[in-house]
Amino acid sequence: MTSIFELETPVVLVDIDKAEANLKNAQDAANRAGIKLRPHIKTHKLPRFAKRQVELGAVGITVQKLGEAEVMADAGLADLLLTFNIVGEKKRARLKALHDRVTIRVVADSADTVDGLAETFVDSAKPLGVFVECDTGMGRCGVQSPEAALALAKRIAAAPGLAFAGLMTYPAAGKYHEAADWLADAKTLFDDKGVALPEITTGGTPDIWHMSEAGVATEYRPGTYIYMDRSQVAAGAATYDQCALAVLATVVSRPTESRAIIDAGSKTLTSDLLGLQGHGYVLDFPEAKIVGLSEEHGTLDVSACGVKPKIGDVIRIVPNHCCPVSNLFDTVTLVRGEAVVETVPVAARGRVD
Amino acid sequence: MTSIFELETPVVLVDIDKAEANLKNAQDAANRAGIKLRPHIKTHKLPRFAKRQVELGAVGITVQKLGEAEVMADAGLADLLLTFNIVGEKKRARLKALHDRVTIRVVADSADTVDGLAETFVDSAKPLGVFVECDTGMGRCGVQSPEAALALAKRIAAAPGLAFAGLMTYPAAGKYHEAADWLADAKTLFDDKGVALPEITTGGTPDIWHMSEAGVATEYRPGTYIYMDRSQVAAGAATYDQCALAVLATVVSRPTESRAIIDAGSKTLTSDLLGLQGHGYVLDFPEAKIVGLSEEHGTLDVSACGVKPKIGDVIRIVPNHCCPVSNLFDTVTLVRGEAVVETVPVAARGRVD
Repeated sequence: MTSIFELETPVVLVDIDKAEANLKNAQDAANRAGIKLRPHIKTHKLPRFAKRQVELGAVGITVQKLGEAEVMADAGLADLLLTFNIVGEKKRARLKALHDRVTIRVVADSADTVDGLAETFVDSAKPLGVFVECDTGMGRCGVQSPEAALALAKRIAAAPGLAFAGLMTYPAAGKYHEAADWLADAKTLFDDKGVALPEITTGGTPDIWHMSEAGVATEYRPGTYIYMDRSQVAAGAATYDQCALAVLATVVSRPTESRAIIDAGSKTLTSDLLGLQGHGYVLDFPEAKIVGLSEEHGTLDVSACGVKPKIGDVIRIVPNHCCPVSNLFDTVTLVRGEAVVETVPVAARGRVD
Repeated sequence: MTSIFELETPVVLVDIDKAEANLKNAQDAANRAGIKLRPHIKTHKLPRFAKRQVELGAVGITVQKLGEAEVMADAGLADLLLTFNIVGEKKRARLKALHDRVTIRVVADSADTVDGLAETFVDSAKPLGVFVECDTGMGRCGVQSPEAALALAKRIAAAPGLAFAGLMTYPAAGKYHEAADWLADAKTLFDDKGVALPEITTGGTPDIWHMSEAGVATEYRPGTYIYMDRSQVAAGAATYDQCALAVLATVVSRPTESRAIIDAGSKTLTSDLLGLQGHGYVLDFPEAKIVGLSEEHGTLDVSACGVKPKIGDVIRIVPNHCCPVSNLFDTVTLVRGEAVVETVPVAARGRVD
């Protein structure tokens, strides 16, 4: 048995028992709430975990890019929701190729996106399912009102090669009530106008334990919940003990009494702050603060540590945001506690387009 | 001829004429200043550019990780400086394998690092060159005083398999005078004690045009200068016209009059701020502000734009920090203006250890 402390650093560790427990907890919560789960694979980017999510009861998976969809379709995932406005002929051709071999649906928030899709998808015998993306408070993509959602839904329904699939939103963290209210208003409007809403899909790990308060939503798309991270702990969605992903790093320098330098910088932990102070939580030295990152160096203030880290010490860090960490590494190492199980390629890493 | 506007986005464009001009300008400046150039390849991570840097007069290259050194050695680069404390037996074994086939030198800032190297490198006929890393104001790695540098230099010199190579520093941006003063003090001390200083190496693109003020330094290690980026423009080291790297992205949503969403987020542009406001400079819409990034979405405030970007528009963005952008992409597309020349793999991408 190889111990994690024999690995070269930096390396990403994923505790498979913790990941499994996180998957089960969320599926159980979804079952109790009577809501379908459609996990977002952007966090793990690994076919094995996508398959496991489906085995445990997920109705399918969510992806953010065509490249991710292609990797997952190749791996045998058969029901995909691509939560991105697909714009441009080349991208639509790739979408068409996917649509020809798996169940894939997309979102749109504009007439431009819908009209583009309607140019490429013309087969009324096998229409492409299109959700209307709704901005329920996130301030990113999405139509701005239920009325705009209805108008776009009608435009989708009017295109022979498209089928209106329902409403999709990604709520701002902590704003699940606002999102639920928005969607409820939309449902009332659609009902009034006699337009069926096959599905209403929402998401977000920060509010995952409020799935039962998602109101009219029929489906939930969490991503980060499989690994959890420091931002989710800060949001109250997890404890550090439940965090399945950690970066293993080595202390390479102790230039001063209060400073330690590790071999993990922004190329490992990313610069994502997500509103937090510092760049991660050091499991093995909880009093240490990661106060700065260069690409390959992490700077720790260890002045509050009773026992201070020494050069050569190997430490585990829960990153602020686990998803982009997955994206930085060609492989992750699956572990059980301190025992290495297997190192696997991050199949959908770097699928930016 | 393929136009960049036919490419799928997001994609990284590198203008080879601009890169070439940047390389030549810096080599010319180094020649005028009478200082050797040893470019850091962490920015481009491409053997072709490393070779070109050497062809133009660089004495060798700088790398930050063993993985980068291995890629560059495999590609035929023969003189490497690895500016990182190499700690741990496995890493030293990899360093030894490199030392057996190319000229590679490293840095150390502690007795621990030196003693570790001295365990692995024992051949006095082919000693490993080791620089003492000096903290001249950056607050990262490095000994804290010239006296400490001298003591560590003696420890290196006392190890049969090691050779003291000189002093190395990475100065804080804009603090080149402080670094020069620190190094001058150290040189005085070393001279007084009769300890030869074979080389004094410093670096940093923000202050590259002050190379002639590097004082006692004999070598300069710039990285970003090949591509330049928004942070370098902010530092006064380049103009946007000189920036060789741009991210090409597509406008995929216009949810409100003031908001545009592009298909490039932190997985493309990184979250690096480097003290700046916003996440990049939009060459094609200079009044637009990139106010937010999710992994796959960039949020632009376009309220100040006279003509506003439309869905489907393809725009070029100079990122805040070009180096980690190189690290996110498996390939970059070399261009001349708007003409695509070639798409090449980023050979040393993701070499984190």
